[in-house]
Amino acid sequence: MILSALLTSVGINLGLCFLYFTLFYILRKRPGNADVYEPRLVAEGKFEQRDNINLERLRLSTSWVNRFWHPSEEELLMRSGLDGVVYMRIIIFSLKVFAFAGVVGLCALLPINYMGSQMVIDFSDLTNKSLESFSISNVNDGSKRLWVHFGAVYAFTAFVCYLLYVVSIFIFTNKILSFLFPMSNSQNCNLQEYRYISMKRLANYYSSDSKPDQFTVLVRGIPKSSTDSLSGHVEKFFSEYYPSSYLSHYMVYHTTKIQKLISEADKVSRRLAHLRSTQVTSQRFGRVGFLGLFGPKVDLVEYYEKKLEDLEDKVRVQQSLLSGKEVPAAFVSFKSRLGAAVALHIQQAENPTEWLTESAPEPKDVYWPFFSASFLSRWIGNVTVVFACVLLTILFLIPVIIVQGLTNLDQLETWFPFLQGVLNITFISQVITGYLPGLILKMFLYLVPPVMIMLSSIQGYIAHSQIEKSACNKMLWFTIWNIFFANAISGSALYRAKIFLEPKEIPNTLAAAIPGQATFFITYVVTSGWTSTASELLRLMPLVSNFMKRTSLTKTDEKFEVPSFPYTSEIPSTLLFGLLGITYFFLSPLILPFLLVHYCLAYMIYRHQLLNVYSPKYETGGTFWPIVHNSMVFSLILMHVIAVGIFGLKKLPLASSLTVPLPIITLLFNSYCRKRFLPVFKGYPAEIMIKKDTSDPATANFYEKLVTAYQDPALKPIQFSGRTHGHNAPLLASEA
Amino acid sequence: MILSALLTSVGINLGLCFLYFTLFYILRKRPGNADVYEPRLVAEGKFEQRDNINLERLRLSTSWVNRFWHPSEEELLMRSGLDGVVYMRIIIFSLKVFAFAGVVGLCALLPINYMGSQMVIDFSDLTNKSLESFSISNVNDGSKRLWVHFGAVYAFTAFVCYLLYVVSIFIFTNKILSFLFPMSNSQNCNLQEYRYISMKRLANYYSSDSKPDQFTVLVRGIPKSSTDSLSGHVEKFFSEYYPSSYLSHYMVYHTTKIQKLISEADKVSRRLAHLRSTQVTSQRFGRVGFLGLFGPKVDLVEYYEKKLEDLEDKVRVQQSLLSGKEVPAAFVSFKSRLGAAVALHIQQAENPTEWLTESAPEPKDVYWPFFSASFLSRWIGNVTVVFACVLLTILFLIPVIIVQGLTNLDQLETWFPFLQGVLNITFISQVITGYLPGLILKMFLYLVPPVMIMLSSIQGYIAHSQIEKSACNKMLWFTIWNIFFANAISGSALYRAKIFLEPKEIPNTLAAAIPGQATFFITYVVTSGWTSTASELLRLMPLVSNFMKRTSLTKTDEKFEVPSFPYTSEIPSTLLFGLLGITYFFLSPLILPFLLVHYCLAYMIYRHQLLNVYSPKYETGGTFWPIVHNSMVFSLILMHVIAVGIFGLKKLPLASSLTVPLPIITLLFNSYCRKRFLPVFKGYPAEIMIKKDTSDPATANFYEKLVTAYQDPALKPIQFSGRTHGHNAPLLASEA
Repeated sequence: MILSALLTSVGINLGLCFLYFTLFYILRKRPGNADVYEPRLVAEGKFEQRDNINLERLRLSTSWVNRFWHPSEEELLMRSGLDGVVYMRIIIFSLKVFAFAGVVGLCALLPINYMGSQMVIDFSDLTNKSLESFSISNVNDGSKRLWVHFGAVYAFTAFVCYLLYVVSIFIFTNKILSFLFPMSNSQNCNLQEYRYISMKRLANYYSSDSKPDQFTVLVRGIPKSSTDSLSGHVEKFFSEYYPSSYLSHYMVYHTTKIQKLISEADKVSRRLAHLRSTQVTSQRFGRVGFLGLFGPKVDLVEYYEKKLEDLEDKVRVQQSLLSGKEVPAAFVSFKSRLGAAVALHIQQAENPTEWLTESAPEPKDVYWPFFSASFLSRWIGNVTVVFACVLLTILFLIPVIIVQGLTNLDQLETWFPFLQGVLNITFISQVITGYLPGLILKMFLYLVPPVMIMLSSIQGYIAHSQIEKSACNKMLWFTIWNIFFANAISGSALYRAKIFLEPKEIPNTLAAAIPGQATFFITYVVTSGWTSTASELLRLMPLVSNFMKRTSLTKTDEKFEVPSFPYTSEIPSTLLFGLLGITYFFLSPLILPFLLVHYCLAYMIYRHQLLNVYSPKYETGGTFWPIVHNSMVFSLILMHVIAVGIFGLKKLPLASSLTVPLPIITLLFNSYCRKRFLPVFKGYPAEIMIKKDTSDPATANFYEKLVTAYQDPALKPIQFSGRTHGHNAPLLASEA
Repeated sequence: MILSALLTSVGINLGLCFLYFTLFYILRKRPGNADVYEPRLVAEGKFEQRDNINLERLRLSTSWVNRFWHPSEEELLMRSGLDGVVYMRIIIFSLKVFAFAGVVGLCALLPINYMGSQMVIDFSDLTNKSLESFSISNVNDGSKRLWVHFGAVYAFTAFVCYLLYVVSIFIFTNKILSFLFPMSNSQNCNLQEYRYISMKRLANYYSSDSKPDQFTVLVRGIPKSSTDSLSGHVEKFFSEYYPSSYLSHYMVYHTTKIQKLISEADKVSRRLAHLRSTQVTSQRFGRVGFLGLFGPKVDLVEYYEKKLEDLEDKVRVQQSLLSGKEVPAAFVSFKSRLGAAVALHIQQAENPTEWLTESAPEPKDVYWPFFSASFLSRWIGNVTVVFACVLLTILFLIPVIIVQGLTNLDQLETWFPFLQGVLNITFISQVITGYLPGLILKMFLYLVPPVMIMLSSIQGYIAHSQIEKSACNKMLWFTIWNIFFANAISGSALYRAKIFLEPKEIPNTLAAAIPGQATFFITYVVTSGWTSTASELLRLMPLVSNFMKRTSLTKTDEKFEVPSFPYTSEIPSTLLFGLLGITYFFLSPLILPFLLVHYCLAYMIYRHQLLNVYSPKYETGGTFWPIVHNSMVFSLILMHVIAVGIFGLKKLPLASSLTVPLPIITLLFNSYCRKRFLPVFKGYPAEIMIKKDTSDPATANFYEKLVTAYQDPALKPIQFSGRTHGHNAPLLASEA
């Protein structure tokens, strides 16, 4: 690709970004759009009607810029949880890394690349110049200048590792603090002052709230007993072995049937509300047979009211018929955090497949449908997920191949000869090679995260946050494979897979293929990085649906819900940019300024969105960080492997051999970090728990709440119709 | 190799075995040899002087045969610990496996191999027949008969997995029982009755002894405190966080200097004892300068007495100067087993590199020198060990190449032309090809286990049993690599390593190389399996040294010590035979009868030795079993890989593809077993500990013992000379 095509792409995307910003600036002031642009404020009831006064408007618009920059990390932590902080830290981390890389790359590597003469290029016209002349491919074979690249690789690796370590410490500290003070308002993160603050807080925050999940463990694999029911067996086991700390337990039941009934009742009740709010009486009568086409005409309101009552009765009958439908799983609550931790960490039974304990998720985070699944169906689910992931990866090669065709115009012309005339127009060909490929890829990528979440949800995770994390991980490897490798290494899927079966050849294959794709990835950064991030600010889809809702005649009484941040799709795409930057840093430093612009945009926009738009539904407690860490280390090692190959191809075997220790050192660093930081993502240390237990002992009041904290929503008393009922739904939690 | 060479080897080895048995039968009755053949009885004081009465002799000799067969597993468990039982179980396991394999191999596979006509052989003379005609190489390419081999591979894998599972359950059960009843006399292992017995025992064995290691954890990475000493910090930490269960602690000190002084004093005191016992007075005077050559003549007894006193004083001074020499490690004892388990399993400090806990070994099992090593020296030790292992593996290729030269007589003749005349004599050539190679390999292998133990001891393990286990693991992979792969795949070391860099080619390379080495491994089984096992019974080396001791003029007062079983060398060699049997089972079933004879011999002899000769010094608690399990699974998968290759080479691609699922299923089985059984080798379940805590609570008496259970031998008061001292050595344990 030539420079002018890249400039076209940059121009188009800059224009789009500007358009999005302008639209956002205009639209966000319209009060009707508050649901779209400031749903958190709306939900919290803080949104003020502020039209009609022009002066006020101006003042507000500067305050809006202020809101971009002003809020400290503490406020972010308070409003978006540790996950939000972790996400912003990924962006800050990338900004720092690529600022360093940018200085090194643009000041040292780029001039050296440009001064080389390996590629035979026409030097007369800069705009028609191939971008290859800025990449390492242009440096002469065996040139001593490659040692600068070599040094840059070492320095860059050291810098990234140093930053990873610092950020890990930061998140690690925050995680401990947020355990100690879950509801505290300001979480100062100054590392030097950590000890001091930690001690001071212990004195101050006696009154902070306790969380039920700190006192509870999930027990699975409860063995059948010949004398007792499962519930009785749990009671007996824990009161025998933990007489002083055991508090209560909540059995999990098979509720698939009830869940189905409730969701049906929910549908009917919504329909009913819709009918009632309709002014047009003709809509009140209709047929209720197959697809509303057959059967006699009836009063639909009456019909649905009857149906709803029937469903409610059925649910109540089912709810009272639960004995014998126990799943061998229970939430067991203890009187202290340490008590729960003891049950969590020590193997309970002689048979290690019975009485398995794992940490309980927060009550609102529990993914209930899973429990009903039998072991076999979960196993089948797992196998299915593996196959589905492979299938998805293979199918996704189709758009990738299309995209690759677009970057090679010659190939496109041979495929579709009739396009020859159109493709010869410079602007069109520049749009096609510069803008379209990235866009198409991005469109297809939009479809993947929901699929991944769906796949993760049938794998048997017990919490929404775990599903999200697993989907994020899947998505990350999918992205790296399908965007990075599939684009960098051309050839059939089988050929690509085969490369990894010949370990010796990997460095050379990668070194030969990857530098050539630099221009494609630059356009990808511009299209996918800049424009997509800007469109995130505009929130096009919610805007449209909000508009539709407001203009439609009927008013639905659907509850207004603040969206939660889509970590599953955003973290992998942010990490992919990191991977691109790290691997291309020494190959083609021209990518770095584009990445820096992207991260600056992302910093402003996502910060704004996290504070104003998204609200966390559940916390993963910063457990996205290990994924980020692994991905960064993987990127570094990929860079090293490519460096080994490149220095070999460039006939500098000494540099090639001297690069080999680098991945080993990086892996050692990684193993140290795993040892140092990973444990805290798995459980809390005894010191912290005991401190918390003494500083903030659970009250009798809290115990009462704890006993009923975990309850399957399918077993809660339901009330859709306005009827009053003589009997109450069984309160199963009190059984304990 | 031809059949007659194999027969020569079998003949020689049978003769040797017979010789060893006869010698054993004669020598063991001589009372002077009791130290060699029945050291356990001697140590226990049960050995009766029983010469001169002929009738008694006869009776005893039949009782000796009885002793081979009679003792049940319970007696073995009582006398040799769980490790002895595990070792015998390996042999029984192998016997069962190869009995099954033998029936299948000799009845089904061998005739099929023999009926093939792939190898062009002279059928006239059976003794000159190449052994190749009994191997799978002789089956015609693409023959349908290969499906029998295919079926045999599947059936055999299923059988081995089934047995592995059963044995795992057996050891697992025993491990739990031996925790519950460490000193009980009979450990019935009937699986069906396990529950019943377990309950009955709980009622009966209230009085069984508690062990200090059940109540103790080893804490490492104790952080420095600005106000307290390390010991004070430990005291403070555990009394703050575990006020109800913390009992005491024992700090570990740097004692390298004292250890050196003590070993010097020990040497001097022995020398002194030797001098005192000498009748020849001329020996009492000598020079004490360099090498005893210079300096004035002095009374040596006086000189050494003086020196010993000096050393003792130095030791006492050092022992009293310990403050500030603390290692950041301590043995922390708790009041209950559960208390220790809580500290063991839950991460203690906010910083996961501080207050690290691990389970404490038995007091007599602690490897004290390690503690003095700094973190850096341990790290350097680890790196050194890796390099040393690699070096050893490379150096060991020298004897392997010599051995390979011996099996190829032609090559030997080209190397040493002058040998041509000798080599043409049939018997000599048969001895050289049939007997010598295995013998040479075995001789070199004798040297490796002590090296491996030495290497493991500088790796930073804190217990003798851990060192032994680690050395056993090292030895296993060394044996598999240097005996199996190095012999099977000819070529340079680099070439051998390269094979594993091209994963696709592994099955074909192995399939092409391994069947050809069947004859070599049969002679290896005969030499190394039969004769070495028989020589184990004779105990040649101890016999000779015992003879020397008895005939020498001076009497040393060295303490008589019962040897402990050399698991480090015996387990890997037993497992290597398993590997050979499993991989050659379908390639060349002729190896199976030889293996069966070996295992029968091993069963009788090792059982006898475990009961009469060896005494366990420390228990690993059956933790050798996971090594055995892994090795068996590895052997199975190696067999599958070879099968995939062989069916491909034999032009039966369908069978080749259908074998591919087999290793996957085996790995799934392995992962299930790891989940099911591995946890019990790492810690005890809470259920068991709490039961034991209630059924057998620790007494005040036991607590007193517990406080002083762990003590560095270098800090115990010493007493070599006969002097009385005014001051006592500091009793450091009382510090806690």
